[in-house]
This record gives sequence, C-alpha cells and structure tokens, in this order.
Amino acid sequence: MSKPIEIRNPWTGKFDYVIIPLPPKLIVQQCNRLRRAQRGWLQLGLEGRIEVLQQWKQAIISGRDKLLETLVNDTGRLSISQLEIDSFLSSIDRWCKLAPELLQESVKDTAISFIELQQTAVPYPLVGVISPWNFPLLLSTIDTIPALLAGCAVIVKPSEIAPRFTGPLLASINTVPILRDVLTFIEGAGETGAALIEYVDLVCFTGSVATGRKVAEAAAKRFIPAFLELGGKDPAIVLSSANLDLATSAILWGSVVNTGQSCLSIERIYVAESIFEKFVEQLLAKVQRLELAYPRLENGEIGPIIAERQAAIISDHLLDAVEQGAVVHCGGEVENYGGSWWCRPTVLTSVDHSMKVMTEETFGPIMPVMPFSTIEEAVNLANDSIYGLSAAVFASSETEALKVARQIDAGAISINDAGLTALMHEGEKNAFKFSGMGGSRMGPAALTRFMRKKAFLVKTKNISDPWWFDNMSGG
Amino acid sequence: MSKPIEIRNPWTGKFDYVIIPLPPKLIVQQCNRLRRAQRGWLQLGLEGRIEVLQQWKQAIISGRDKLLETLVNDTGRLSISQLEIDSFLSSIDRWCKLAPELLQESVKDTAISFIELQQTAVPYPLVGVISPWNFPLLLSTIDTIPALLAGCAVIVKPSEIAPRFTGPLLASINTVPILRDVLTFIEGAGETGAALIEYVDLVCFTGSVATGRKVAEAAAKRFIPAFLELGGKDPAIVLSSANLDLATSAILWGSVVNTGQSCLSIERIYVAESIFEKFVEQLLAKVQRLELAYPRLENGEIGPIIAERQAAIISDHLLDAVEQGAVVHCGGEVENYGGSWWCRPTVLTSVDHSMKVMTEETFGPIMPVMPFSTIEEAVNLANDSIYGLSAAVFASSETEALKVARQIDAGAISINDAGLTALMHEGEKNAFKFSGMGGSRMGPAALTRFMRKKAFLVKTKNISDPWWFDNMSGG
Repeated sequence: MSKPIEIRNPWTGKFDYVIIPLPPKLIVQQCNRLRRAQRGWLQLGLEGRIEVLQQWKQAIISGRDKLLETLVNDTGRLSISQLEIDSFLSSIDRWCKLAPELLQESVKDTAISFIELQQTAVPYPLVGVISPWNFPLLLSTIDTIPALLAGCAVIVKPSEIAPRFTGPLLASINTVPILRDVLTFIEGAGETGAALIEYVDLVCFTGSVATGRKVAEAAAKRFIPAFLELGGKDPAIVLSSANLDLATSAILWGSVVNTGQSCLSIERIYVAESIFEKFVEQLLAKVQRLELAYPRLENGEIGPIIAERQAAIISDHLLDAVEQGAVVHCGGEVENYGGSWWCRPTVLTSVDHSMKVMTEETFGPIMPVMPFSTIEEAVNLANDSIYGLSAAVFASSETEALKVARQIDAGAISINDAGLTALMHEGEKNAFKFSGMGGSRMGPAALTRFMRKKAFLVKTKNISDPWWFDNMSGG
Repeated sequence: MSKPIEIRNPWTGKFDYVIIPLPPKLIVQQCNRLRRAQRGWLQLGLEGRIEVLQQWKQAIISGRDKLLETLVNDTGRLSISQLEIDSFLSSIDRWCKLAPELLQESVKDTAISFIELQQTAVPYPLVGVISPWNFPLLLSTIDTIPALLAGCAVIVKPSEIAPRFTGPLLASINTVPILRDVLTFIEGAGETGAALIEYVDLVCFTGSVATGRKVAEAAAKRFIPAFLELGGKDPAIVLSSANLDLATSAILWGSVVNTGQSCLSIERIYVAESIFEKFVEQLLAKVQRLELAYPRLENGEIGPIIAERQAAIISDHLLDAVEQGAVVHCGGEVENYGGSWWCRPTVLTSVDHSMKVMTEETFGPIMPVMPFSTIEEAVNLANDSIYGLSAAVFASSETEALKVARQIDAGAISINDAGLTALMHEGEKNAFKFSGMGGSRMGPAALTRFMRKKAFLVKTKNISDPWWFDNMSGG
C-alpha cells in the first residue's frame, strides 16, 4: 500500500484532498492492459478513433461543471480554468480535422534498380505522459490527443500538485468503453512518474529542467524517445521603433497572465534606451488596472501562486535582485493571505545578468526591464541564457523585427505580441539549449512524432545470384 | 600528453600503427574553431556547400590509392574497401542532388485569425560523429555528408580499431580550405568520444548497445539529440513458397558478406519445416564456393575478423551452441593464422533461443537455421529478441511476404533479398527496441534531422489591448 499524499488548495492554503500513488505493480498491470488494447485501437482505423474522441468530447461537455469545479480547486483560478476546458475541447476538434491528412499512408513509393520501396509508419504502442501543475488539463492532454489519433494507447501521470481534475476526467473516459481501454490517468508523484518510464515505449514530459534531465536519462537507458518541454526565461526585445502601447500591453499580458506560471512567460524585457523611460511609465500605468483574485475568486486578474515551493523561489529572486540594487516600482513581494500565496505584478529596473531574476526561471508576475543601446547588445542579452524556449520582438515593421528574431536562439518567436504559441499551434518548433528535447509538440510533427517509420524493400527481379557474388573476391 | 594507442593490423595480426588520442583541451579548441567557422558555412548557401563537397570528391579521387591502401590495412579486405570508396563517392553526389529540394525554405506560411506563421529551419551548429570499425569510411561519412549540406560543422571520432584511413581523408580535406574549417577527424578511443559529446550540439553514434547507452545518457544530460545506430540480430524468415535458390543465395550473402561484421547481417534463419532440409542442403552447397582471403589477400570472399575481441565473442557463441546440442555442418571454429583471426562460413542446425548464437549479436559468418511450423511461430521467433534493426522475408509472392513483414518489429524489412538497406538509402526507418534511437539515417529525414524548426508568429493587426484583457477577470 502506497503512502497517501495530502494535496494543498492554492486559494485557501488548506490541505483538503488526498491522492494514493499507484503502486509499481499496478502501474505494470495498467500498462499491460493498455498495451493489449492498443492493437484493437489501431485496427479500429482513424475514422473509428475520431468517432471515439468525439464521444469523449460530448462526455466532457456533459460533465463540464464538475470538471471546472475541480480545476478551480486545483489552481485557484476561474477564467483560465474555463479557458483550459474550452481549449482542450477545441483541440480535440482541431486534431480530428488534421489527422486524416497527416496519417495518410505515404504512397510515394519509389523504385531504384531492382528494389521497390514501400514506406509505412506505425505508432509507438504505449505513450507515457507526465504533466505539470500550471495548466493541469491542457498540458496533460496536449500530447495525449494526437498520440491517441496516431493509434497509441496513453497513460498519463498528472502533477501531484493539481490532481483533482483527473476524477471528473476519468469519469468522462469511463463513459466511452473503447477509450477506457486505451487511455488512463494515474495518481502519484515523482516516484510514480519514474516507474512509469520503465514500462512505456515513448515518454512526453512537461516540467522542470532538473526532472526533465532525469526523465531523459531514464529514457536513454531504455532507448525510448523522450519529448521534453522544460523551462524558459523568455526575453522580449522592444526596438526603438516599436508601438509602445501595443508593446506594453502585450508584454504585460505575456508576463502576468496565469500569474506568470507559464513556461512561455516573458521573464526578461530589453528596451531600446531611447524609449526606456516611456516604456516603463506606460507599463506601470497598465499594471495599476490589475487586481488580485482575492478575497473574491471571481474578481481580479491575478490568481494565487499554485505551488508553495514556487512562492519561495519568487521571493528569493526578488530579494536577490533588491540586494544587488534593483529598483522595485510596484509589487515586489510575496504575500500570504489566510494561508495562500500571492504576488502582485512587479516591475523592476536597474537589473542585470548577475541577478537570478534575469537568469533563472522565476515563474511569477515579475517584469525586470533593462535598457540596451545597440541591437547587437539586445540580441546578446537575449541569448545569454541557459534557456531557449521562445521570445518576442517588437518593432514598427515586420521586416525589422524578423531580422532581430532570426538571431535569437529559441524555437518560437512572437512578433509584435507575446506568447503567441499559446494561441497558434501550427508552427513547428524545437527547443534550444535546456528548454527541451525531441520532436515538436506544435505543427504536423506533434502527431507524426508518435509514429515509427518502417521501410519495406522489395526485390522486384528474380536474380538468384545476388550482385555480390561477382564483387566479393578479395575479402 | 595523451598515452599513444597501438593499433593492430587484422590481416597480419601485428601492431603496426599508433594513434595519439586528442587531449580534451584540444578537443575543445577544435570544437570552438569549427563552431566559429560554421556561421560562414551556413551563409555560403547550399550551392556553395555543394561546390565545396564536389571539390572534396575530386580530392578524394586524386588520393584514392593511398586511401585504399590504408583501408585495406584497417580492415584486411580489398574488394569491400574499394566498394566503400565507391559508395562514399556516390553518396556525395546523391546528397548534393537531393539536398536542394529537402532544404527549400518551406513557404507554406499560414495565417490564423490575427497571426501569420513563418516557418524556418536552422542547422545544429556542430555535429559530433562517433563511428565504428566495421565500415570505417562509409560509417564515418554516412551522417557527415548530409550534416555538412544541412549547414552544420562536423567533428568525427572514428574507431581506434581502424583509424588509418583518416590520414589520407584528412589530407583530402586539407586541400579544400573552406571544408577544412568546418570538418575534421580526430584520433582517440572511448574517452575521446565521451569528451566529444560534451562540446557538440548533436551526436551521431554507430556501434554497440552498451556504448550507445552511455552516449544516449551523456547526450540526455545535455539535452542534445542523439542518433544511435546500434546492434542487430536480424532474422530471415523463409516461407514454404519461397524460391529456394534465391533465398539461399541472398541469405548466404546477408550472413557472410564482410565476414558477418555488419549490423544488418542475417544472424538467425527461420525456415518452414516442409522445405527445411532442402534449404540447408542448398545453403551448404553454396557455402562450398567460398574461400578465405588467405594466404593471399586478393583471393577468397571471407576476410579476417577485424576486432580481436570479436573473435572471442564468436568463439564463445559457437562453443555455447555446440555445448547445448547444436549441429555444426561446416566451419564452426575461430582459427588463427600467423596472428590474424578467421572464421569460415558456419551453418548450424538443432539450435534454439536458449543459445547465445540465437539471441546475442555474433558479428560473424554464422548461419543458425531453425525450422518453424506456422507463420505465427515464425513471427514470434523473429520478434523474440532485444533487437529490432532489420529483417528479411522470402515467399513466392510479394503480398504473402509483406503480410509477414508487417508483423515484424524492425525498421526495414527486405522482401526476397537480404540487407537491401545497404543498397537503397531512400527508405526512412526507425530502429525498434535496443537497435537504436532518434531520427532515421535513411530517407529525407537523414538530412532534415540535422535542422531545428523555428516558428515566427507575426501579429498582423495593431490591436493594442490583447484579447486577454477581456477574458482575464477571475484569476
């Protein structure tokens, strides 16, 4: 019997929920069950799989209230939880629409000399998904849906910090018998995730660099693919020609939405020195509009800090910055209200790369702003990071912005907006440096990476003595 | 100063050559030098890079005699060394012809709502290649050529068991100044390879499972892609309808060419019981035609065992099989002539999966033949392996053979021939189980896997208040 884990509610600060990690023996059982059913799932064909996913979608819609309630308890936020459910539902439709073209057996058969090539692709039988707490529903399903359509079975281990939503989600899965055979969610923390990697054929992990490295090493030992989506320290570069109103709004959004608890948050802002003061002024004016979602959950834009350990990190980064001379223009501290942790949008200036707030992932609504004098300097600052997830560039013309964007070592770069990868999933992108590894979760690869290529090479002539008999003398 | 390594000549058995491993400090220096030059290499454009590779090809042709001489000393074989040079030269042409289409900037730009997508791909700056001794020239360049065309710089660490060929190869590289800046070969053994992984952006490794696992783990620690081509225990299945003359010739070739020292050697033969005796009889008749390339290098089809430690493994597998009741029809032992190791083509029957010769990679000219009664049994035997590299199926009709081939867990399956992936590089394939990891070295992916995808997401409308302001109340 595994030891139960008590779960904290981020809005009340109370431990009001318990999960019981699935023991390794039962993980093996679940994996065996899913793997057995995967053959039938593949044989069902894509049309059949699409039909099943659409049934699931209807079941989710029917149980939406309960799902929303648990997501609110998991994350302490309302509108983003609604948004998570909406995005999840529309991603089912999006993938059901895209899959038929992406899964077409490539009939691009070719022949060379006496060999005819037939190319095919087969899904990895069992995919393991290990997902984080910051968008519990979205990030536990973003890889799951294309994997299911590709023909894989999927086992998901969501974060133990926000696990309540899996109850209603499992309930919806259980109403669709065929789906129940090839998809499940299990409870547990790090040990459960580690055990899972030993029994799947491919692992998708979203989370920290430190855990990501362990996942990658465990996968490497077994030679299974690991698709990692890790941390970021996304920079925004604001050129002197930029529309300041647009830049300040977008950067504010990109920094504080979801209280900065997003891997693609803007965490470093580099502004041309000629417009630096104006930029800070406008940014500060807009920050004033934002309120905490406390004492009423329904009000305010800034939700609680979900993970208690993250509150300590944000606090540490702020202290470190101030100690080294950073100027705090608003916010600037982590506050506790009745057991829950909060941080108001914080604008810092007089910052540099000796401070943690400019180099380590903060995961809070912190906006350190730093001036630059040349574009070369801006690019060097942006690239001076162990991360390379995404970035943003603001300028009056697309051409000017793209010229800078091309020099940034990151997989996705928003031009004149921030975090656009959260809205548009069509762009294939690979992480740079410590921000991740493996196939892209965006674009067509998001689905095709779940399949292995197989080549059938057919000899088309009956040549009994192969070519080598004539060539082989001399060892 | 690194300790020199003495190198054995596989045909004479004498240690007649020395390499000095490049010290880690100089590896860093080399990597820095290559990385600096890579920018110019990329800016040169594909046409420019093709021109440089063609100049290299001419330089190789000019120095062909010396290159051949060293390859013969590295491997103790003549005709395959000639073949290696020919294949290498034609692969330069092949890739120069294919690259322009594969590297076209995808202008498949798309727009959704207010976002326009521009997709691009950038090469990993520095690729490390760690290659084995069984095809020293081919396997040190198979990944190198597409990587160079993609725009990467490349540093190659060939096996310390067959390193002589790098002298003339480096000489040819040095005659092409631009190429010399972005491509080098370094000397060393395992430690040098391990050090190399710490300084490159992507690693290609061809070799054993044990070393491959270390490479994968080291790459995982740094989150860099590792493309591994590891061992195999390729099965051949001969159905009762097969053309026996064709099957015995092809399987004999697939097993003994290069003295079985190939990852895609046929190492297990499953034959329908109705034709089992005839199959063995014909196979034995054809084996009689083959001779050792000794005492004259220019004669005979079977070259020496290149790696001394491999001679011990082959010997061990044969002893283990005989001890457990295998019947030896010809060959059956590892012989030593004046210090060099030899093994005549060996046909075994009365074998089963309790024997090493049926489960571990032998890497010698050994043909264990086992009967099966049903197709299901044949498929199960073929899949009862830790490996999943490639396979072969023989039947009278393509349809019948493909039906079986589809059930085999392997990346490439030859129909009515063996080892066709050695001849046709168009078929994309991924390894199953312990036979490898990462992007395919065959097909278009062989080149595109050296590039990272970058997405530029351009906001096309000047909306100063982003969408979220309307949606964000409620945390």
